[in-house]
Amino acid sequence: MDPRGNPGRGSDRIDIPLPRTVGMSEGKVVMIDQRKLPASLEFLECADVECVARAIETMAVRGAPAIGAAAAYGLALAASAAGGGSREEVLEELSRAADRLRSTRPTAVNLFWAVDRVLRAARRVEDAGAIASAVLREANAIAEEDVRANLAIGEHGKSLIGDGSVVMTICNAGSLATVWYGTATAPMYSAHREGRKFRVVALETRPVLQGARLTAFELSRAGIPVTLIVDGAAGHVMRELGVDLVITGADRILSDGTVYNKIGTFNLAVLAHELGIPFFVAAPTSSFDLEAEPGEVEIEVRPPEEVTTLGGSKIAPRGVDVYNPAFDFTPPKYLSGIITERGILRPPLSLSIRRAFGG
Amino acid sequence: MDPRGNPGRGSDRIDIPLPRTVGMSEGKVVMIDQRKLPASLEFLECADVECVARAIETMAVRGAPAIGAAAAYGLALAASAAGGGSREEVLEELSRAADRLRSTRPTAVNLFWAVDRVLRAARRVEDAGAIASAVLREANAIAEEDVRANLAIGEHGKSLIGDGSVVMTICNAGSLATVWYGTATAPMYSAHREGRKFRVVALETRPVLQGARLTAFELSRAGIPVTLIVDGAAGHVMRELGVDLVITGADRILSDGTVYNKIGTFNLAVLAHELGIPFFVAAPTSSFDLEAEPGEVEIEVRPPEEVTTLGGSKIAPRGVDVYNPAFDFTPPKYLSGIITERGILRPPLSLSIRRAFGG
Repeated sequence: MDPRGNPGRGSDRIDIPLPRTVGMSEGKVVMIDQRKLPASLEFLECADVECVARAIETMAVRGAPAIGAAAAYGLALAASAAGGGSREEVLEELSRAADRLRSTRPTAVNLFWAVDRVLRAARRVEDAGAIASAVLREANAIAEEDVRANLAIGEHGKSLIGDGSVVMTICNAGSLATVWYGTATAPMYSAHREGRKFRVVALETRPVLQGARLTAFELSRAGIPVTLIVDGAAGHVMRELGVDLVITGADRILSDGTVYNKIGTFNLAVLAHELGIPFFVAAPTSSFDLEAEPGEVEIEVRPPEEVTTLGGSKIAPRGVDVYNPAFDFTPPKYLSGIITERGILRPPLSLSIRRAFGG
Repeated sequence: MDPRGNPGRGSDRIDIPLPRTVGMSEGKVVMIDQRKLPASLEFLECADVECVARAIETMAVRGAPAIGAAAAYGLALAASAAGGGSREEVLEELSRAADRLRSTRPTAVNLFWAVDRVLRAARRVEDAGAIASAVLREANAIAEEDVRANLAIGEHGKSLIGDGSVVMTICNAGSLATVWYGTATAPMYSAHREGRKFRVVALETRPVLQGARLTAFELSRAGIPVTLIVDGAAGHVMRELGVDLVITGADRILSDGTVYNKIGTFNLAVLAHELGIPFFVAAPTSSFDLEAEPGEVEIEVRPPEEVTTLGGSKIAPRGVDVYNPAFDFTPPKYLSGIITERGILRPPLSLSIRRAFGG
């Protein structure tokens, strides 16, 4: 589906006026260029897999589920470009494209999950000429399932948001972080559609300011009142504005319930715990990694320039040492629950995660 | 003393290569223009009290003790300008100037303390022609006492910083926040002078980025290794880099030990508490307010533009609602101690504060 079309089509016939984040149109991957928001809503077109990989690296597209879908569509471009080759040649080309895509960002698990899923679908095809269409079909399935999962997360999570409540969130685990509708925002959009009145406090989320640039943008556009604060104000604002609930997204969730997410999530979880405020994570099951142990997950450290420059301005002394981890991890003891498309998983999380995955 | 002179003169003959933040020279108040840092070290000259008031409002000069000294020198300008008037006229002019200065920023108590102290000194003078010199003498005394208090804070606090340790701080409670040497930085400078090796993790401190712009600048200049992080990374970095100690400044400390300080301090205190890391506040006794009760102190809410624009760039959607409190308060239960020029006050803080003030 072309993201530039009306959002009301397909499986998502709902009045949240946001375009899709990632899609395929006329042989190109089309993505909202999130580096340009909120100043302008522009779309980036990629005709080859290298362009998609760079879009992920430079955060033109970001957010764990959106990255997964973009990578899947990137493989569709690679398969199409390899058309005419033998089955082995096409699969080898796909494998190379997969390696390139996997090298872009190490922490969000949806990227690896989506790439592996598309490769498996490709390998099931015997006829070389049919691989490209199978890959595109799988990429479309991943995108459609993401939207359906988010709508289900919204249904399961919406009752957490009472009338008159104040909800805090960090970064953007919104529609823009997914194919559509978002994860942390899904309960908000679903509660909003039912006419519930509430306010969202969005942390600006340095260094890349996804909260200020993206979450404030999409919630405003959807008609949900949003108040922007700096990250350091989280604890004070929880106390002073009476925050009722925190909902964040996740880039990877381990089998014990440890959540890897945007840097600053751990701060929020500890503050919510200390102040007795429920802290929920919203994520589709594609964000779970049941294999890795805590400590095994690579936390991406991004360039110092993200911290030392802003909009072209230098905001720190030249040559200063910077440590810029893009993610942190939150131990399960701080979580009130994980909102998935299969329902809300409650503590003890290791048990409820095992059950949700049929273990 | 002219801030532009060598810092080694006067009461501060120590090898910390930082100029004084506030001083008086040739009938003008001379201040480092902190809005220009770290790009350039420039000095702002004020010939009248309105200029000083604006310098405080626009944060050309900021930091509780530095604001106090600047206001005292501002009264010296007012007294000098009123020269030739009757005693009543001079005192009335001073009273007007005091009102203007008090209106600049509501939270830091040193401003009110310094203004009141200078007014009392002026009122003790019978001879109208001698008021201006008495006011200048008192302003100089306030500035010199600030430097001496900071040096004493350094002596009392330096043993907290062990060799090889990692110290975290927020905002700038450094030399630039005081007349010289700083409060939170005083134990760092004193430990550094004794040859101890340690690293400081500076939170950038949105929205005005005093950590990135000022603390990183002055610690680097003094030869202390400093690592800059975003505010959201505080908890993760405490855990990952093994932070041994947090030291912050204070804008106001109440009789029960409640600390009003830069927004984000409460986050840090809760995180340190949760992770078992000692959390100290460093402040001169002029930052104590033994009269006010928690909840009575006005927390300054600053303009939304501090959050939504940076270096001229718009970083949030037009018209977004912003809540921008400049300070928060930290209840005494989170404090390991308060480092003052009279020694380290330890819990129970209400008792040790009463004792320190002879109550």
